[in-house]
Amino acid sequence: MQQDYIQLDPWKIIENQWDKNKVMASESLFSLGNGAMGLRANFEEDYSGESFQGSYVGGIYYPDKTKVGWWKNGYPEYFAKVLNAPSWIGISIRVNGENLDLAQTTIHAFERSLDMKQGLYTRTFDVTTSDGVRLKGSVDRFLSLKRTEVGAIRYQLEAVNAAVDLEFCSYLDGHIKNQDSNWDDPFWEAVSQKGGTTNVLVNRTFKTTFGVGTYMQNQLSVDGETVIDAAIKNEQANRLEETYNCSLSVGSVASLVKIGGYVSTLHHPEEELISVAEREATAAMEAGFDQLLQEQQKAWAEIWEMADIQIQGDVSSQQAIRFNIFQLNQTYNGADARLNIGPKGFTGEKYGGSTYWDTEAYCLPFYMATKPQKVARNLLQYRYQQLDKAIENAQKLGFINGAALYPMVTMNGEECHNEWEITFEEIHRNGAIAYAIFNYTRYTDDQTYIPEMGLEVLIGIARFWAQRVSWSQARSKYVILGVTGPNEYENNINNNWYTNYLAKWCLEYACEQIDAVKKYHSADFERIAAHVDWKDSEAEQWMKVASHMYFPYDETLEVFLQQDGFLDKELVPAASLPSAIRPLNQYWSWDRILRSPYIKQADTLQGFYMFAEDFSKEVLEKHYNFYEPFTVHESSLSPCIHAILAARLDRMEEAYAFYLRTSRLDLDDYNKEVHEGLHITSMAGTWMSIVEGFGGLTLKNGQLCLNPKLPPNWSSFRFKILFRGSVLEVFVDAQETKLFWHGDNPLSLNLKGKAITITK
Amino acid sequence: MQQDYIQLDPWKIIENQWDKNKVMASESLFSLGNGAMGLRANFEEDYSGESFQGSYVGGIYYPDKTKVGWWKNGYPEYFAKVLNAPSWIGISIRVNGENLDLAQTTIHAFERSLDMKQGLYTRTFDVTTSDGVRLKGSVDRFLSLKRTEVGAIRYQLEAVNAAVDLEFCSYLDGHIKNQDSNWDDPFWEAVSQKGGTTNVLVNRTFKTTFGVGTYMQNQLSVDGETVIDAAIKNEQANRLEETYNCSLSVGSVASLVKIGGYVSTLHHPEEELISVAEREATAAMEAGFDQLLQEQQKAWAEIWEMADIQIQGDVSSQQAIRFNIFQLNQTYNGADARLNIGPKGFTGEKYGGSTYWDTEAYCLPFYMATKPQKVARNLLQYRYQQLDKAIENAQKLGFINGAALYPMVTMNGEECHNEWEITFEEIHRNGAIAYAIFNYTRYTDDQTYIPEMGLEVLIGIARFWAQRVSWSQARSKYVILGVTGPNEYENNINNNWYTNYLAKWCLEYACEQIDAVKKYHSADFERIAAHVDWKDSEAEQWMKVASHMYFPYDETLEVFLQQDGFLDKELVPAASLPSAIRPLNQYWSWDRILRSPYIKQADTLQGFYMFAEDFSKEVLEKHYNFYEPFTVHESSLSPCIHAILAARLDRMEEAYAFYLRTSRLDLDDYNKEVHEGLHITSMAGTWMSIVEGFGGLTLKNGQLCLNPKLPPNWSSFRFKILFRGSVLEVFVDAQETKLFWHGDNPLSLNLKGKAITITK
Repeated sequence: MQQDYIQLDPWKIIENQWDKNKVMASESLFSLGNGAMGLRANFEEDYSGESFQGSYVGGIYYPDKTKVGWWKNGYPEYFAKVLNAPSWIGISIRVNGENLDLAQTTIHAFERSLDMKQGLYTRTFDVTTSDGVRLKGSVDRFLSLKRTEVGAIRYQLEAVNAAVDLEFCSYLDGHIKNQDSNWDDPFWEAVSQKGGTTNVLVNRTFKTTFGVGTYMQNQLSVDGETVIDAAIKNEQANRLEETYNCSLSVGSVASLVKIGGYVSTLHHPEEELISVAEREATAAMEAGFDQLLQEQQKAWAEIWEMADIQIQGDVSSQQAIRFNIFQLNQTYNGADARLNIGPKGFTGEKYGGSTYWDTEAYCLPFYMATKPQKVARNLLQYRYQQLDKAIENAQKLGFINGAALYPMVTMNGEECHNEWEITFEEIHRNGAIAYAIFNYTRYTDDQTYIPEMGLEVLIGIARFWAQRVSWSQARSKYVILGVTGPNEYENNINNNWYTNYLAKWCLEYACEQIDAVKKYHSADFERIAAHVDWKDSEAEQWMKVASHMYFPYDETLEVFLQQDGFLDKELVPAASLPSAIRPLNQYWSWDRILRSPYIKQADTLQGFYMFAEDFSKEVLEKHYNFYEPFTVHESSLSPCIHAILAARLDRMEEAYAFYLRTSRLDLDDYNKEVHEGLHITSMAGTWMSIVEGFGGLTLKNGQLCLNPKLPPNWSSFRFKILFRGSVLEVFVDAQETKLFWHGDNPLSLNLKGKAITITK
Repeated sequence: MQQDYIQLDPWKIIENQWDKNKVMASESLFSLGNGAMGLRANFEEDYSGESFQGSYVGGIYYPDKTKVGWWKNGYPEYFAKVLNAPSWIGISIRVNGENLDLAQTTIHAFERSLDMKQGLYTRTFDVTTSDGVRLKGSVDRFLSLKRTEVGAIRYQLEAVNAAVDLEFCSYLDGHIKNQDSNWDDPFWEAVSQKGGTTNVLVNRTFKTTFGVGTYMQNQLSVDGETVIDAAIKNEQANRLEETYNCSLSVGSVASLVKIGGYVSTLHHPEEELISVAEREATAAMEAGFDQLLQEQQKAWAEIWEMADIQIQGDVSSQQAIRFNIFQLNQTYNGADARLNIGPKGFTGEKYGGSTYWDTEAYCLPFYMATKPQKVARNLLQYRYQQLDKAIENAQKLGFINGAALYPMVTMNGEECHNEWEITFEEIHRNGAIAYAIFNYTRYTDDQTYIPEMGLEVLIGIARFWAQRVSWSQARSKYVILGVTGPNEYENNINNNWYTNYLAKWCLEYACEQIDAVKKYHSADFERIAAHVDWKDSEAEQWMKVASHMYFPYDETLEVFLQQDGFLDKELVPAASLPSAIRPLNQYWSWDRILRSPYIKQADTLQGFYMFAEDFSKEVLEKHYNFYEPFTVHESSLSPCIHAILAARLDRMEEAYAFYLRTSRLDLDDYNKEVHEGLHITSMAGTWMSIVEGFGGLTLKNGQLCLNPKLPPNWSSFRFKILFRGSVLEVFVDAQETKLFWHGDNPLSLNLKGKAITITK
């Protein structure tokens, strides 16, 4: 554990002491989002200490000119960046004419609390200014789930030791910058602005010309009485201010309610942004802070009703899983098929783009099991809509005949990354997209997605693999040369077992689905065949490649090798590395990492997780025993897979340790980088480690199987999953496993710790 | 051959037609240098067409902030760039008030001629302006070998069809930029400037604070009569102009002589730059253009006396070898140990830095054989002086105990490159530096360099290799993982045969030299041992590593493999690649190149060239037959090695074809990039392909051996080499080989096409 300042609580994330060195970490941890927009937990008032400002609007991006040391053919010239948007939260405060700045006050008490149950972020402080004025502050903030363009702040200040004159200068500010910018180009231009009851700045992104209206309304009250005096307006270029003044006697409380947020051209014509903002702001202000908060509580209650996982006996585990589920729901709710799940969600800029293979490999199961089927289908459809771009992307790399290579990182289907070893070689991502189609279909039994959309994607991907292999005369096998596997601590390797296995599977699955669509959806097949210029001889070639695929294997160890030559490495277990050089990527040069045996994230084992049915427990155990000691889990996506596999191997202590690592990755900042934002996509892996790991949920031959196991320290746990229209609730404690089946065929079973198979 | 506009001539490079698309190529081909400074062949007068401006001062560089897409630990934060310097050649010309610009005239005749015998560049043109004025121009230019801070231009214009008013505005301009700039930062600041008879701009590089004075004096004459009228002076910020007016009657000739060049803080205190410039300019102007040119002819005659290679029967070969020798002498003459041989010399900016392994692996033999011994020793000493930086560089990558890794590209010993696969992994460069010490010592028999300086370098390099290997339990051998060999079309490969062979050799050679110094130079040994903290156990470990080094080998083919897994590739010969996709690196994405079998430059064969004694002709032949078909020679450093090996195998047709490719690489622009500058270092490879290839010069056990073979088309060739203080001249024709031995033991032999061994 790298930090321990977050207090334990089953429903809240709490920081209860002031530490200026934790400000940027807390700005990430206390981030808010509502699926459409998000905010880092920046202070409303001015703050002169270190801070990382961030406000984000889903789906709004800018194609920044690529920065590259040494150009390679095939690199994208531009790629999409997550954009810091104009800020609406700012409230500068003057206390008897002096600026309030926590960095310049004596702090008697300071607390942040993120109430995950109701989706409310509260900050309180008790400070004495340099002039000796003592104030208690209490700031509530949330982004409305119901009104997705609306956020609300209630900023309260109490005069503690003396009467005081207060000035609240609430503002909108369009003068913002991205930290993650390649060339310091401006990303936004100011379009128009309008003062009034509602204040609106309209800005537009360069190149992509997304229009965004940033707005606010303010209302000041003192001891519950609204201050009627009109605010002083100050209008500057791309900045609007409203200043409210009041005088407080000792014990009195001033309260500024600020409604604000974003309206964008994703949902409205640019010329209507101002009027939409006025309408939304006015409706929200009329409803009032309390009613908005009630709506928020209700909306979160609905989410928790389905998504909550209850853990008894271990508040650290309980807090962590709720934090993960909370953040996933803040980031993506499936309402808009144009959006996806960025690795940092709305909590930071890093990694740019919004969509990685994380979505398919880690996030899909969570959304399938906790949201209506349409949500998971939207995630698949996102890739279907970008198939043409994936084909273009493959063409840039020399592939032909409709072969598709999905980008490593993308916003609109175009590649957003340019390291050759990743962009061109981390091609296993393409397999994950096919796998998600399989996974979705087997889980939901939706027989329409593949004929309607999925098959074209499967064909494009299979064509890619069939062209990407090489025939090795020396081995009389097909090999896949020059790849980077999930373990990015190996680059440009040959015959990455995971990649080869996935490629073979993709080819076989595509053939299988072609046959099925041909048979059961012949009209769809005709349409697709004409569109993709299908020839049956292709499938023959694919099966030939699949059946002659090479897999590196060591006869003595009886393990598949992560790649050719893995055994040439100096196989020193990671446990013997001094902690002072961890994480390795912050201390070692890249060549040293590459020639080491250390595995950034599950690679061969990722395949054993995904293709569980293909391997016996004994074979799994052999591979787990071989690879786990070299795995350094310096990717957030690693511990969850190891947690699941350890649970499958009945190593519950180990599984539990990995669970803590994945679930508390950000809360405890294992990788020393939480200040940059949260690891959103890996949070879905945390969910998997409970449901698929401890719950033992798998699907075999269309049947849902459970094999629940209680981890150490937990007295019980309980979760629900949506499965083909019904809700299955699982309760596990040391004595028993109970199942509750809500839906068409209500069912309640009481199992004494036995694995079960359910056929719906 | 990619272009054919350069006319054949034994001593001249000639372009005799105007083609605006060839301007940038010719600017490279007609570049001038004198070892201290250089100029691309930019026009003096204004030119509105495409042009790549370049003036360079040896040893003057700027550490540009690194540009990188994705940072890796160990990358340099700054690296040195070759700098475009303030321009001194500019002469704007007005013809009856209209600007003369060849892009805007009707061109009746246009010729460039680079007279290599006398080091003179001449351009003539016959044009009619848009106003109908016909002018003949003739411009002579050279950079003085004798006065290394002086260049001279004689710009002559003749009125052909009408009397004309001419205005010559001769200027110095400090407002220049680098094309190769990472962040468009300014590299130069203006310090001071002074008009007068001599005009001087003093500029200073940022960060490195090199001061450079750029100066000029001008003198106009008409029909041989000096125009006495003072020029009109115009002084602007960082720009000085002198304007001369004259009127010409038909047939009259105006001639502007311009003396200019650079004085720098490499040789003078900054405060003296103006006075030194004044002194140099005045002395040169007083000597006059003709005398300066006589000095130039004399200096070049001295160079040619030793360095010329005469070829009868094939003017294309003759022109090419002289062009190569000429450019090498323009770039580096060994006078200043702080300078080195940049891959583009003074002809372009590309590649930054100045020193690559090219110096040791390709250039050293040329300078050893055509210059006093001190010159080659200076080249070695350059690396000795940078040993501390090489140790620091290795430390950045995690090496300890004085292990040294010389940078891939450098100016002052610091790394100037940041691609991980090159910077961190193309480590064979380190071996070339040790090999050069061996090569120098065996050629010159200088027994002082190793005890004085070389041994420390050898120890640092051996320490690097001993730490860089890994022990493979699986093979019971030492392996070298994660390298890039000379063939940069493979990255991060394991067990590159060339690298492993060189590493083993370095370890053994270092041990051998330690023993020798211990025995014959014990005082030196004591000094070095104390300085490097020597322990004899190190040598034992080195020998253990050397004797257990792994080499990939295929039993069936009986060839060493370029790297592990090479036979997994689809081994389609390069001859079957369509010419439309060549060079591959301009058409294929990097991953495609990497998984192909195509070899950018000799890699395994580079080892066979360097360690010729270790392999029989039969073994060489097997390897040549295996690797040559996959070699695409897209590095300039490749054809020369293949030329030499083909000659060793008596394949004279092939050797001749490779000779043409290496010698005419730039003249015929094989790699479609001559506009960026010339391939200077590979020109030394051209020299090797004659002397070591056709001449068959090798050293075996301290004996100089010759095995001359006449290539097709040549009726004879003749070259000289300096060998241990004497000059050996070799003449070969179809009938006989004659040797002339000038020096302490004059000798003349007449050999009937036999190989000979000479013991001095």
